[in-house]
Amino acid sequence: MKIRPSTEADRDAIWDIFREVVAAGDTYALDPNISREDALAYWFAPGTHTYVAETDAIGDGAAVPGKPTASPTIIRARQVLGTYILKPNQSGGGSHVANAGFMVSARARGQRIGRAMAEHCLSEARRLCFRAMQFNYVISTNIPAIRLWQDLGFTIVGTLPGAFRHPENGYVDVYVMYRSLLEK
Amino acid sequence: MKIRPSTEADRDAIWDIFREVVAAGDTYALDPNISREDALAYWFAPGTHTYVAETDAIGDGAAVPGKPTASPTIIRARQVLGTYILKPNQSGGGSHVANAGFMVSARARGQRIGRAMAEHCLSEARRLCFRAMQFNYVISTNIPAIRLWQDLGFTIVGTLPGAFRHPENGYVDVYVMYRSLLEK
Repeated sequence: MKIRPSTEADRDAIWDIFREVVAAGDTYALDPNISREDALAYWFAPGTHTYVAETDAIGDGAAVPGKPTASPTIIRARQVLGTYILKPNQSGGGSHVANAGFMVSARARGQRIGRAMAEHCLSEARRLCFRAMQFNYVISTNIPAIRLWQDLGFTIVGTLPGAFRHPENGYVDVYVMYRSLLEK
Repeated sequence: MKIRPSTEADRDAIWDIFREVVAAGDTYALDPNISREDALAYWFAPGTHTYVAETDAIGDGAAVPGKPTASPTIIRARQVLGTYILKPNQSGGGSHVANAGFMVSARARGQRIGRAMAEHCLSEARRLCFRAMQFNYVISTNIPAIRLWQDLGFTIVGTLPGAFRHPENGYVDVYVMYRSLLEK
């Protein structure tokens, strides 16, 4: 798997993942019927760094030792399975704190793509000289995400009571999570 | 003093207040050099309700009993001394929580205009059927604001360590404040 900055050519793949994640309605406070235009405007907003995680599709034309490699086939077979954004959480006096958002295709869950993107993201945030990272809206029912962030050094610094209307669970709490990027 | 929805005619007065508040750089995480266009786009964004607090200027052509009233003079003498916005803090499953932002002209501080606007804002938020209100970014050095929000029933539900670079105090904490609108 490779994580790299996104290009124009990734927009269709990103929209496919975005639509799928938002339609589920249980992890993001976004309109499940958001338009492609609005979604991509959000994901590619000015000042936002956008990345994708891609992998070769299984059973594609990958190189076999001793066989000639059909490069164009391999390039077409690469699949974008996840995407993330990294940006300042605020402007002006708050611009030293980063914010990030992650989306993984449902068909690629359980492959640690989220963790790989999160580690890449922390590295990129340090490279861009952010001093801390904040997640503004981690829904308390999203246990895999909370466990991952805690494993990566984030702590819950705030609880917003009943701030998210979950499609199955009704009003549930939301966490604000934060970690410094100065140490470690 | 009167608090009312803003109109196109208020844009110059709002920009004067906005520029003054943001240039001070100690209460908002916004670029102190933000353009008029960007500032007004933010304050009048789609889905945002924008209000102004206005008062008659002292010593203007206000009506005197027994004297004819020069209405146009009185209208011109009204001054916008504060402005606030009210909007959903998130989309989709988070749209039942309101967010608000307040700005008062420096020359009108100490006249309880902030409090009057905040009380008006809570009333408007209930009228618009929001279930709670959240302030995402209350800078810990902004004691008058924190006292006012606590007095109006908000509590600190989160602390963001060193999230704001204060022009005089360096990195200072930021609070997330929240209150339900369902009771009282």
